[in-house]
Amino acid sequence: MKVNDVVAHIQDGRDRFLADLKDWLAIPSISGDPAHAPDVRRSAEWLAAYLREQGFPTVETWETAGLPAVFAEWPAADPDAPAVVVYGHHDVQPVEPLSEWETDPFKPVEKGDRLIGRGASDDKGQVLFHTLGLRAALAASGADAPPVTIKLLVEGEEESGSVHFAELLRTHRARLDCDAVVISDTTMWAADVPSMCTGMRGLTEVELTLRGPSSDLHSGSFGGAVPNPLHAMVALLASLHDDAGRVTLPGFYDTVVPLTDEERALFARLPFDEDAWLRTAGDSRAAYGEEGYSTLERIWARPTAEINGMWGGHTGPGGKTIVPREAHAKISFRLVAGQDPAAVRDSFRAWVANGTPPGVLAEVRTSGGGVRPCFSPIDSAGVRAARRAMERAFGGEILLTREGGSGPEADLADILDAPLIFVAVGLNGDRIHAPNEKVEIPLLLKGAEAAAYLWEELATALR
Amino acid sequence: MKVNDVVAHIQDGRDRFLADLKDWLAIPSISGDPAHAPDVRRSAEWLAAYLREQGFPTVETWETAGLPAVFAEWPAADPDAPAVVVYGHHDVQPVEPLSEWETDPFKPVEKGDRLIGRGASDDKGQVLFHTLGLRAALAASGADAPPVTIKLLVEGEEESGSVHFAELLRTHRARLDCDAVVISDTTMWAADVPSMCTGMRGLTEVELTLRGPSSDLHSGSFGGAVPNPLHAMVALLASLHDDAGRVTLPGFYDTVVPLTDEERALFARLPFDEDAWLRTAGDSRAAYGEEGYSTLERIWARPTAEINGMWGGHTGPGGKTIVPREAHAKISFRLVAGQDPAAVRDSFRAWVANGTPPGVLAEVRTSGGGVRPCFSPIDSAGVRAARRAMERAFGGEILLTREGGSGPEADLADILDAPLIFVAVGLNGDRIHAPNEKVEIPLLLKGAEAAAYLWEELATALR
Repeated sequence: MKVNDVVAHIQDGRDRFLADLKDWLAIPSISGDPAHAPDVRRSAEWLAAYLREQGFPTVETWETAGLPAVFAEWPAADPDAPAVVVYGHHDVQPVEPLSEWETDPFKPVEKGDRLIGRGASDDKGQVLFHTLGLRAALAASGADAPPVTIKLLVEGEEESGSVHFAELLRTHRARLDCDAVVISDTTMWAADVPSMCTGMRGLTEVELTLRGPSSDLHSGSFGGAVPNPLHAMVALLASLHDDAGRVTLPGFYDTVVPLTDEERALFARLPFDEDAWLRTAGDSRAAYGEEGYSTLERIWARPTAEINGMWGGHTGPGGKTIVPREAHAKISFRLVAGQDPAAVRDSFRAWVANGTPPGVLAEVRTSGGGVRPCFSPIDSAGVRAARRAMERAFGGEILLTREGGSGPEADLADILDAPLIFVAVGLNGDRIHAPNEKVEIPLLLKGAEAAAYLWEELATALR
Repeated sequence: MKVNDVVAHIQDGRDRFLADLKDWLAIPSISGDPAHAPDVRRSAEWLAAYLREQGFPTVETWETAGLPAVFAEWPAADPDAPAVVVYGHHDVQPVEPLSEWETDPFKPVEKGDRLIGRGASDDKGQVLFHTLGLRAALAASGADAPPVTIKLLVEGEEESGSVHFAELLRTHRARLDCDAVVISDTTMWAADVPSMCTGMRGLTEVELTLRGPSSDLHSGSFGGAVPNPLHAMVALLASLHDDAGRVTLPGFYDTVVPLTDEERALFARLPFDEDAWLRTAGDSRAAYGEEGYSTLERIWARPTAEINGMWGGHTGPGGKTIVPREAHAKISFRLVAGQDPAAVRDSFRAWVANGTPPGVLAEVRTSGGGVRPCFSPIDSAGVRAARRAMERAFGGEILLTREGGSGPEADLADILDAPLIFVAVGLNGDRIHAPNEKVEIPLLLKGAEAAAYLWEELATALR
């Protein structure tokens, strides 16, 4: 397959691709709004019809307890070829505040190199570049089938929490059997700094309740002589971090996969403007975190303990001089490669039991199993292959990033038991989840080009 | 004045005294309930008429912006004799839950040695024993006037926070000029352990707000790299106490009048059942407080810092993985002799400014000036005189107590600039503020007897 052939085929298909994408973007598939459920279904039907037209031999609409996903499969000619699941979503974010949109969010328009409309970047544009890329690859190679079996899975509830997605994966586990999962729902560092995500932090949440007296007590009569659960709470939670900003739970870092020197060097080469970042961080006045790590390393590759909420005693207007009966806190942990949500919860429980003072009773509640971190080692075959494909498309080095939180990606990695590969061309400036969402058309075409090269790279790498 | 004469006169007056007290107790002078405002006025009128009948040359009803107080003055024959303000209140607590009363709260009844009804102990019974005592003293001595000028001040809003009392004191400051203030609104340790209160803790309150980002942040995108104001709050407030349970504000203890060995020895002689006390303290599971002090010393004579309430971030159901924008805490300090509420607030402000980490903004709000602690040194002339009067009445040693909180007493001491002397015969078991309030009639008569001796003791001591 010659580069020029692929590029030529993509250029040839550009206008039709954009016209098709605009058709799809015109469907307001807002999964978070029940009034738009029919639109999400219409979006799934549109995509299924489109994929059939593009030549996918198998196209199915998969129902869930909520909104439907679309599955399409294009088997490799070689039955021993690797299989790859490509994940994306066809639902979109709500559009409020509508008054801030300069154009109708569901009447997509091109302005120069930009295509503007809800879903242009997140995620319809990034789903659809795969079809353009695949068609270009087939045309350039003259083959009837891709060099790997491609299983496209496009869910309809990502923007409303992917609540039925794990169940969907388990239901269709056999059909989704694969050697890798390609995710096209992330961003690059910048248009002129193409990059690839290699990991996402996981999550586990706990709620801590400390109980003292059976009722609020008059602090004049009792203050200073019985334990105050709010005092116990601040003492306990203050000791959750040490002076270096490290989490003090025993064993918390023991299994963490450390950042390699190569990753740190690659992170450090990203042109990061900390002042600008602080402005995006709610005008935070200072960067603060674990000593010895940069801001990017802290949010991408280091685990955290974060108090998300705390309450107890008198919280209304005016004063009330009491020793309160209870104190509460909600705490979440962001986890990185090597950490297990259940092990962190167990460690927290033991730490609380050990640190609760006499006269105070502690209760730790958890709900759900948390989200496992996901991580693709940068020297793994899949990441190296995808990086090569992107380097061929962009004509230069692809730097590395990670993401601080995660959605359904960890479910994909866990349930399908396959490594994740992030190939995406969105930008942080695409205003996803905000008014005037856009995508850079040249980047969409580069995404298609990378996708065209990806299958042959993976066919070799994953064997 | 012979003891037997006084006792005989009190015994002679007993039945009439109890009949009069019952008349007064039948008036439901609940100051906290606006519907009972006319009853509070009726109670003031009853008391004014009664005091005239008892021979007070001057009796006035003093209006406030709320409910009226009664003032009565009986000048000493000697114009150079000391003057003493006697403080009490004629309003009472609400009676809910009414179903738990075994008798009508406003149909007072005698059962054996007990008089049952709302206000029997708090405070009508303890106001009225002064008239019985004064009449017995005058009868026993054959004098027309007491040996000190007595200025009885009985307010009508104590149970609803004495909101207009300081203003009343300032308005009538000249008329209330005095050498000491006798307070008859406290309790003794036990019927068989007569005691006298010598101090009450003061109070000052602050509200602390810590601000981080301008909005709640996604903890996946930002957690671990910007300051979390809840983390700053727990770190700051955890450092408000040291490991010995001492408050760490610089200078907090510098001006505290220390407990004397004599007071500590007298406190230690009180038969204190800590397990029983813990049950009254909301079934607290352990005593806890400043090292080196007993529970009674902690609540009576040591200052505290107490977190009364705290809140920030997500406090509703379920999880919300945010770095919250704000954290709040309400903190009150109980203060003891020698401490100044304004100085403690200033110290807290400086301490917060010094301990707030970079990237977090702190705001300390205060309202009102706080309550000064009040304290009468046990070797002061007034306390010694009152203790002698009580020892003569009870026929044995009077032990010492303090109280952990205070009402309008500090205003009396501050505005009238006079030492406080606590002469009272209520018991902790009198169920004041609860259903079935009662007073022990023999103790009321002992109170009258102590009051009878008090004036000649004070006449000598205060000269």
